[in-house]
Amino acid sequence: MARLAVAARAFSASASAGGGVAMVQGASRGIGLEFVRQLLRRSDEGRVVATCRAPGNAAELQKLKEEHAPGRLTVLPLDVTDESTIEAAAASIQETHGSLDLLINSTGILSIPNVIQPETTLSKVQKSSLLLAYEVNAVGPILVIKEKLIAPFQFSFLAVVVGGRSETGRGFSLVANMSARVSSIGDNGLGGWHSYRASKTALNQLTKTVSVEFGRKDNIACILLHPGTVDTDLSRPFQRNVPKDKLFTREFSVQKLLSIIDSVKKSDNGKFFAWDGQEIPW
Amino acid sequence: MARLAVAARAFSASASAGGGVAMVQGASRGIGLEFVRQLLRRSDEGRVVATCRAPGNAAELQKLKEEHAPGRLTVLPLDVTDESTIEAAAASIQETHGSLDLLINSTGILSIPNVIQPETTLSKVQKSSLLLAYEVNAVGPILVIKEKLIAPFQFSFLAVVVGGRSETGRGFSLVANMSARVSSIGDNGLGGWHSYRASKTALNQLTKTVSVEFGRKDNIACILLHPGTVDTDLSRPFQRNVPKDKLFTREFSVQKLLSIIDSVKKSDNGKFFAWDGQEIPW
Ligand SMILES: NC(=O)c1ccc[n+]([C@@H]2O[C@H](COP(=O)([O-])OP(=O)(O)OC[C@H]3O[C@@H](n4cnc5c(N)ncnc54)[C@H](OP(=O)(O)O)[C@@H]3O)[C@@H](O)[C@H]2O)c1
Ligand SMILES: NC(=O)c1ccc[n+]([C@@H]2O[C@H](COP(=O)([O-])OP(=O)(O)OC[C@H]3O[C@@H](n4cnc5c(N)ncnc54)[C@H](OP(=O)(O)O)[C@@H]3O)[C@@H](O)[C@H]2O)c1
Repeated sequence: MARLAVAARAFSASASAGGGVAMVQGASRGIGLEFVRQLLRRSDEGRVVATCRAPGNAAELQKLKEEHAPGRLTVLPLDVTDESTIEAAAASIQETHGSLDLLINSTGILSIPNVIQPETTLSKVQKSSLLLAYEVNAVGPILVIKEKLIAPFQFSFLAVVVGGRSETGRGFSLVANMSARVSSIGDNGLGGWHSYRASKTALNQLTKTVSVEFGRKDNIACILLHPGTVDTDLSRPFQRNVPKDKLFTREFSVQKLLSIIDSVKKSDNGKFFAWDGQEIPW
Repeated sequence: MARLAVAARAFSASASAGGGVAMVQGASRGIGLEFVRQLLRRSDEGRVVATCRAPGNAAELQKLKEEHAPGRLTVLPLDVTDESTIEAAAASIQETHGSLDLLINSTGILSIPNVIQPETTLSKVQKSSLLLAYEVNAVGPILVIKEKLIAPFQFSFLAVVVGGRSETGRGFSLVANMSARVSSIGDNGLGGWHSYRASKTALNQLTKTVSVEFGRKDNIACILLHPGTVDTDLSRPFQRNVPKDKLFTREFSVQKLLSIIDSVKKSDNGKFFAWDGQEIPW
């Protein structure tokens, strides 16, 4: 709450700079959709680009678009497994918005009936599942970041909300990739879920690798986030053993994640945070 | 030296049990080939299965075969990107040797002219490179392990050499996967090499995941090894900035790695060791 107030103050101070642009990639459902909702609620000016595979079917996104002033929410098609859609979305964003102050990659797959299932044992591991999870969960976000949509910091609403709490008002742009606690190798005491785990662990390494380059050349930081166990389509088939108080609503999780995004410092570049702000070991 | 002496003693004590079988996957060149050479030198009985993509072209392996008694070295075709060759090799090994006491996955790619290059910057990252490195370096070894060639421990030469120094004489079988220090996320201060790094980091997670299952059900341990920077085809294009005393011969590196394999304990299951026995952070 205190944090959100700070963010709001920062926004008022910089509103004259013209607002900023956030992109949520993987925004049709679940945590991504909730990011869009909460980001739009934050000010009357900041613009949000929401991407998803099939905008025509994304009824919730279309509803949000109608509820807000024209231009505040742009919905674009983007399938992380199809590079041409990444490039087309990037070109459109560049034309309409210039560059982004915040990019959230929320896309992720854990199970798809008859296609991929979290493995309970090595004997169930399929090559096709390993490759598909990698393509969507690890390769996808990196190809989106590669488009250079994230600007080296410009003074604008989202950049201020995101990180501009330095006395000089200087901040940085941010990439936040949705990882998962099960990606932690050090924390892996249970085994199983080979394809999902390995893909998210690789995402952690790729994000860290990119963060080193950004830290050197650009005023951009990259972080990894674990949202907790959140009540979405992704977790639904696996919620049976989750204690009720450990299953978060999307609202709660995204509120927590946005407060991390708000309070992150440049020195947090390359780090992996859980919803409660605790760092997760690699 | 002292360690090898212990191993040799253990071998003499158990030779009557009939010798054991080690498999080196990715044995045509480099570190894998040197593993085969040194394993064959260890006793007059232990058998070695060496796999590679094209046995017909593997002149060094064929030479080793001729130099040793019939049956000591079996050379089989196996391309980790072609599951049918993994299954065929597994069937042949099962028929001829029963099961393995030691499996070393040494296959790895870093660069192939006109196909894949270690990336110096994000803008050079290609989807095809990310996927190919993952398929060979991470998926490949796991599909080989999935074949269940590694037996829950049997009392035999290699198992004793490998881990059977407990007072009861009881040991365990071992899987050793060749990783690389650059797979460490915590240790990644330089960036770059996105495809290779991410694939090896994923291999670390997959190995850890498998180790949890093996630790629970079977008397098998899995470890990860970093060989140091070793003078092979893989490192050759990138040796320019390596100080001379940091560039190891294959002989030296494999001697060090075998001494780790010799001294590993069941409680080391799932760990990641450098050539000098130091654990590498995830
Ligand atoms: N929920 C949890 O408990 C939990 C825990 C840890 C981490 N996470 C991570 O949090 C992120 C969001 O998860 P969630 O729970 O919100 O999942 P979700 O409700 O299943 O939503 C997944 C989103 O990813 C999109 N997506 C799937 N494949 C895609 C592709 N090829 N290209 C573009 N978009 C694609 C889906 O779009 P469509 O509508 O087109 O399918 C959907 O918008 C994921 O990265 C997940 O791994 C979630
Ligand atoms: N050398 C180093 O400094 C260093 C450092 C850290 C880690 N490592 C790791 O150590 C391991 C051995 O490396 P190295 O230096 O010995 O490399 P190398 O000399 O280039 O040998 C690589 C081996 O992998 C095989 N291979 C490649 N693609 C394959 C496929 N699809 N199926 C089966 N085998 C395949 C090659 O067989 P072909 O002859 O058929 O091509 C060759 O035997 C690798 O995992 C590497 O990542 C090496």
